[in-house]
Amino acid sequence: MGFGMAISALRAGHRIWGQDINHTAMERLQQEGGTAGISIEAAAALDAVVIVVLNAAQMENVLFGPEAIVPRLRRGAVVLGCVTVAPAFAQAMETRCAEHDVLYLDAPISGGSLKAANGCLTIMASGKDAAFAAARPVLDALAETVFELGASAGSASAMKATNQLLAGVHIAVMAEALTFAATQGIDAATFLSVIQKCAGTSWMLENRAPHIVSGDYTPHSAIDIWPKDLGIVREIAGSAGFEVQITTAALRQFADASAMGLGREDDAAVVKVYARQAGVVLPGVEGERM
Amino acid sequence: MGFGMAISALRAGHRIWGQDINHTAMERLQQEGGTAGISIEAAAALDAVVIVVLNAAQMENVLFGPEAIVPRLRRGAVVLGCVTVAPAFAQAMETRCAEHDVLYLDAPISGGSLKAANGCLTIMASGKDAAFAAARPVLDALAETVFELGASAGSASAMKATNQLLAGVHIAVMAEALTFAATQGIDAATFLSVIQKCAGTSWMLENRAPHIVSGDYTPHSAIDIWPKDLGIVREIAGSAGFEVQITTAALRQFADASAMGLGREDDAAVVKVYARQAGVVLPGVEGERM
Repeated sequence: MGFGMAISALRAGHRIWGQDINHTAMERLQQEGGTAGISIEAAAALDAVVIVVLNAAQMENVLFGPEAIVPRLRRGAVVLGCVTVAPAFAQAMETRCAEHDVLYLDAPISGGSLKAANGCLTIMASGKDAAFAAARPVLDALAETVFELGASAGSASAMKATNQLLAGVHIAVMAEALTFAATQGIDAATFLSVIQKCAGTSWMLENRAPHIVSGDYTPHSAIDIWPKDLGIVREIAGSAGFEVQITTAALRQFADASAMGLGREDDAAVVKVYARQAGVVLPGVEGERM
Repeated sequence: MGFGMAISALRAGHRIWGQDINHTAMERLQQEGGTAGISIEAAAALDAVVIVVLNAAQMENVLFGPEAIVPRLRRGAVVLGCVTVAPAFAQAMETRCAEHDVLYLDAPISGGSLKAANGCLTIMASGKDAAFAAARPVLDALAETVFELGASAGSASAMKATNQLLAGVHIAVMAEALTFAATQGIDAATFLSVIQKCAGTSWMLENRAPHIVSGDYTPHSAIDIWPKDLGIVREIAGSAGFEVQITTAALRQFADASAMGLGREDDAAVVKVYARQAGVVLPGVEGERM
């Protein structure tokens, strides 16, 4: 995601410094006209820092860890937090950035790596007017749609968590339904061709069920995303005294998939948990030991 | 549904005899050119019988109960079973009809009363070639799309149950997500406007969430449909030794809604179960005792 976003920003005319633990991405960035690595001098000149890492711990480490970037930024620079995190964490980042006179925009993203590379992401954003103003050129370069969700960090992360709740459940229940149909002699291709024309369809079903039909579990989005993101949903709900029972049932399936060693497969592979339980054979996975 | 289907068949040039416990529907049918009630003589002349009742017990009663219609039908007439039932029940109906030389088409429907009245239903159908051939003029009159799902009764009912599994879970998880968002200060209208543009959307979310946004629970499809239909899903899955855990979590929410006295409200009212548990106020239901 980060690489595609960097390319989109370059294409829009921005100067880009990139930092990635993946050296190939760094080399490709340099080939495209960006700079690999961020020196102390470069940090002081930045207008905006876009954080696209795996989780809250990594984000906190980049912003305030041993090689903290926030204290090196100029007054009025803006940090865009594009990671899926709990609203309370986003609020804490906003507060801690403010202590260094740095702005923070809570800005989780949706859309996948292809949309990232084309500057067509959906960004859910919340933060102070000044943070929006400072981030605007970056938002314009990266996003097709920006939802402005309020004047403080947290609201955007809450909306992102809401989307993840739905998306995760929709993937898992697609797998439940596809396996249910298979127990009744309905194959995966027939399942997909009928359901996508019926009231039972969802965006995720139409996007992920084809991976099962073709037996191709090359990861577009990996299983291991979901224990993390649905865990955040449960954490937020728990703080509000609210039980997300369907989400919890879906989370259990992804956790089982991860425990089966499927964590790095495409998230459609959650169907293998169901297929094993039901004794159903899936396309392309006949001989596979699960 | 039945009335709309009768009107569509009349419009296509068929002669129609209708039977309904709702006298208003019978009167309206007569006004439209149909005949209210089915005499023994009329039954013997019928080419096709379309059964659109609530459940398997009602269907069995119409076909083989005290005023059984099947023994009165001519040889080669066809019964279209349009009710959501278990595949094993549909197979039993096919077998029992065959004992009277009557054909049976397993033909559950999807699409709602508006599509029924416009001859635009989706019909999932399975049965013998002869049953399809005999039913064809009726299918042409009622349906925009007919999925042909196999040469014996049962497959179509299995596909319908699969669709209901997904549709029911998608309604309940929409309510779970909308309430989750509300606990974080995101109102229902914002939830809908953002999610319908994101990967978390579903057909059911876009169809039912507007009822919550407008606070209008006039039943299009009632809560009480779902304990029945998801109960059928669990029954089928149980027979196959398969656990439908997400479905079970959704079923629990609809059962709770029914227990709260919401059975005849629109199925979007399942959100009231969540709202009560979370202490969230929904549009248009502020003063309502739940």
